[in-house]
Amino acid sequence: MSAKASPRSAASRRSDSASRLDPDLVDDLVAANRTLARLNVLDAFGHVSVRDPRDPHRYLMSRSIAPESVTAADILLLDLDSQTVDPKDDGKLLYRERFIHGEIYKARPDVNAVVHSHSPTVVPFTVTRAKLRPLLHNAGFLGLGTPLFEIRKAVGDGTDLMILTPNLGKDLAKKLGKDAAVVLMRGHGDSVVGPSLPNAVFRAYYTEVNARQQLAAITIGGPINFMTRAEAITSNEAMLRASARPWALWRKRALAEL
Amino acid sequence: MSAKASPRSAASRRSDSASRLDPDLVDDLVAANRTLARLNVLDAFGHVSVRDPRDPHRYLMSRSIAPESVTAADILLLDLDSQTVDPKDDGKLLYRERFIHGEIYKARPDVNAVVHSHSPTVVPFTVTRAKLRPLLHNAGFLGLGTPLFEIRKAVGDGTDLMILTPNLGKDLAKKLGKDAAVVLMRGHGDSVVGPSLPNAVFRAYYTEVNARQQLAAITIGGPINFMTRAEAITSNEAMLRASARPWALWRKRALAEL
Amino acid sequence: MSAKASPRSAASRRSDSASRLDPDLVDDLVAANRTLARLNVLDAFGHVSVRDPRDPHRYLMSRSIAPESVTAADILLLDLDSQTVDPKDDGKLLYRERFIHGEIYKARPDVNAVVHSHSPTVVPFTVTRAKLRPLLHNAGFLGLGTPLFEIRKAVGDGTDLMILTPNLGKDLAKKLGKDAAVVLMRGHGDSVVGPSLPNAVFRAYYTEVNARQQLAAITIGGPINFMTRAEAITSNEAMLRASARPWALWRKRALAEL
Amino acid sequence: MSAKASPRSAASRRSDSASRLDPDLVDDLVAANRTLARLNVLDAFGHVSVRDPRDPHRYLMSRSIAPESVTAADILLLDLDSQTVDPKDDGKLLYRERFIHGEIYKARPDVNAVVHSHSPTVVPFTVTRAKLRPLLHNAGFLGLGTPLFEIRKAVGDGTDLMILTPNLGKDLAKKLGKDAAVVLMRGHGDSVVGPSLPNAVFRAYYTEVNARQQLAAITIGGPINFMTRAEAITSNEAMLRASARPWALWRKRALAEL
Repeated sequence: MSAKASPRSAASRRSDSASRLDPDLVDDLVAANRTLARLNVLDAFGHVSVRDPRDPHRYLMSRSIAPESVTAADILLLDLDSQTVDPKDDGKLLYRERFIHGEIYKARPDVNAVVHSHSPTVVPFTVTRAKLRPLLHNAGFLGLGTPLFEIRKAVGDGTDLMILTPNLGKDLAKKLGKDAAVVLMRGHGDSVVGPSLPNAVFRAYYTEVNARQQLAAITIGGPINFMTRAEAITSNEAMLRASARPWALWRKRALAEL
Repeated sequence: MSAKASPRSAASRRSDSASRLDPDLVDDLVAANRTLARLNVLDAFGHVSVRDPRDPHRYLMSRSIAPESVTAADILLLDLDSQTVDPKDDGKLLYRERFIHGEIYKARPDVNAVVHSHSPTVVPFTVTRAKLRPLLHNAGFLGLGTPLFEIRKAVGDGTDLMILTPNLGKDLAKKLGKDAAVVLMRGHGDSVVGPSLPNAVFRAYYTEVNARQQLAAITIGGPINFMTRAEAITSNEAMLRASARPWALWRKRALAEL
Repeated sequence: MSAKASPRSAASRRSDSASRLDPDLVDDLVAANRTLARLNVLDAFGHVSVRDPRDPHRYLMSRSIAPESVTAADILLLDLDSQTVDPKDDGKLLYRERFIHGEIYKARPDVNAVVHSHSPTVVPFTVTRAKLRPLLHNAGFLGLGTPLFEIRKAVGDGTDLMILTPNLGKDLAKKLGKDAAVVLMRGHGDSVVGPSLPNAVFRAYYTEVNARQQLAAITIGGPINFMTRAEAITSNEAMLRASARPWALWRKRALAEL
Repeated sequence: MSAKASPRSAASRRSDSASRLDPDLVDDLVAANRTLARLNVLDAFGHVSVRDPRDPHRYLMSRSIAPESVTAADILLLDLDSQTVDPKDDGKLLYRERFIHGEIYKARPDVNAVVHSHSPTVVPFTVTRAKLRPLLHNAGFLGLGTPLFEIRKAVGDGTDLMILTPNLGKDLAKKLGKDAAVVLMRGHGDSVVGPSLPNAVFRAYYTEVNARQQLAAITIGGPINFMTRAEAITSNEAMLRASARPWALWRKRALAEL
């Protein structure tokens, strides 16, 4: 539709009709942003994305604004190099850390949604030696691993701790690995993935809840009776299905407030 | 009214007129769900039930939705095997853990209401060795015992920690025992019972409050001056009467927001 | 106005015109109740009173309802034996622990307002050996003493921890003493007094805030640099004046929500 | 414009037209007050100021009211001796601690906005020996130093801990020093500065957030992996730019609620 020059490859472009977004999925993404802000997982920073079900090489994400203010008009389509696809989006301000999303989608075909947040009670677990482990059955997915990405090891001292390049995104995706649902980011927060957007939102929320409860259990003291690996796996399977209940409530509430 | 076949016994069925629910009691149950969600005892999971005062072999409970969104139209009548009574409810999605309620009603004729929740500050007390004990006079009922149900002991490793069968419900009811008002569920939450719905709601709330205050007392350190058994018993009796005051406020507020 | 018999002495009665309440003071008391509920110092229990400026032998207090629902129509006049004065109030349900207020007014002529609450972070300091002491300048009044009333010492084991008789009220007032602004009540909460209603509300709020901050300081560890006695006294004087600022905001906000 | 005598020097006065305030900047300051109150950094006390971009020897600040109730009509212009400039403001009640602002503007030409608050989780770090240090990347500015102002050392025992004179303001500004963004005030709170109002608001908020997360990290235990000095400097630079995102959200939300 547009003939003007662009730094993005022609291959990454399609006609407007192809890039037109599914309104229900856009509403899902708006609801996910607003819900995680209301639940205090996201503050004025952080971002949520969902892989395009019609083209696994693309994902949907808001332009760079605070999550609690995202509306349908803010949702963009990006390719897996985290560049906008639609020429009408040229010049829009993008999240500087969007490479977290694109590089995880490249590395993990099973992942269809990503949440990056400064989850407030998770951050303390990124700067101490205690391992974040599942103790609440809703958080069984933490038993799949909670690797810690230490950016100081990856690229040395003196960064601002942010994932501002495709290479840092690749490093983070590598640390996440093939199985984990959560990668901790030192002094920064976490990135949480799931096979669906409702499940990724569910996991981002219960990662924060489990961190709060683990902190309380540490305060109480003594050995903590964490979930076993077998329990974590079974619970994770159960919660893949159970995510639908809170999601129905959260989505409805978020869209009603628009 | 319906002639179509059903897996439920004919004996558990009655005519529509018999199963018509008391509107005030339905409102009570709606208010109980919404109040405990507002007070952060229930999140998007958990459920509340009340025994039918007209037939002790039945109880009322919402269909499977998030507690904060329950309305009168969602309330169902179940028998003590936790099956729906009214043919018009065939096919409605039921809480998978409803056996908690039915089996407790079978085992405890003195119990007329049950709350199952993931009470957030109670969970840490289910995975540590510290005993949850009453220190706040409103929570004297904790002095009747706070037994811990460890599902791993009951049915072995590898479950999702949920009470999904009548047998697990029976095991849980047995652990609750004849006297306690609360049974802790490892890595999961608790189930709280009472002689009336207002009292069960009151107890579910003050179980959470007492857990928060016990956590703070542990942080302060030194021996904790818990209530004595005699104080717990006297306070429990007083609170059976005093539950009416918060209930009047909570019910009015919950129904006003509908 | 009424000829019917009454257990209250004739002397404690006056004509309706004499007992008619100052509407501004009634609004103050409504605002105090609602503000302390909104600030989570009062939950569904607790009560606030103010001495009648026209007759120091009387005080104003709500009938027995949850503080956040108090309106002008609920305010009653009581004598210092904590009995209603106006015949039209005969038969109204009164707070069972109102003797806290009446007996403190008898013992402390300098006190013109009393707040009794289950202040949530104060309760843990009533069951441990750590002394609640002022560290925040707004809470300098804690330096006047924070005596602990242990009801088990006063009347033995087996009570419900509540102040249900004039004698227990006297015991509590005696423990408060001549100087303190706060008396802690084991396993129950506290009673906070002040020379004016705005100041008593201010003190009830900052007692809770100081408890939270002392709990955090204990968590951080090491010696805590509490206020000295001289600082506490100077700060208390300053806050007697400074109470007016938050009160103006709180009163306006509470009455606007009616 | 006014001929009546005034204790302020004639030099500090200008014509009404000169002192007319920029409406956008006034709105900024209103939004800053309300935002920090909503985020629980400011309670009914505390104040925010911004240097007048048209005259570096003046600053804007509300008259003495609770921050959450500030409107455009409350904003005054003060000179760096913290006296009002406009004769129409004669007799208005000013914040007694306004010297914090004036003296910092004198000492730090790089500072264009100041927030003084009783930041609740910062206070415990002012009475213990643990140093408040940056662990969250948003709070890298804490790496510029978090000196502690101990008023007992500056002027001796027995004060109310408040900065009520120009000399105490100078002492505080001296303790802040040439580099730091935050000066802690023992038993009182902190004063946070920035090159712009959005950045000072951002820093005041993230000082509180970092304090909460450091408290949690202390609870978890073991050595804390704080940001290095190089990381703190780089992050601070990044956040000087990134402050704009939350500010856009916060300002819009605050002004919409007026």
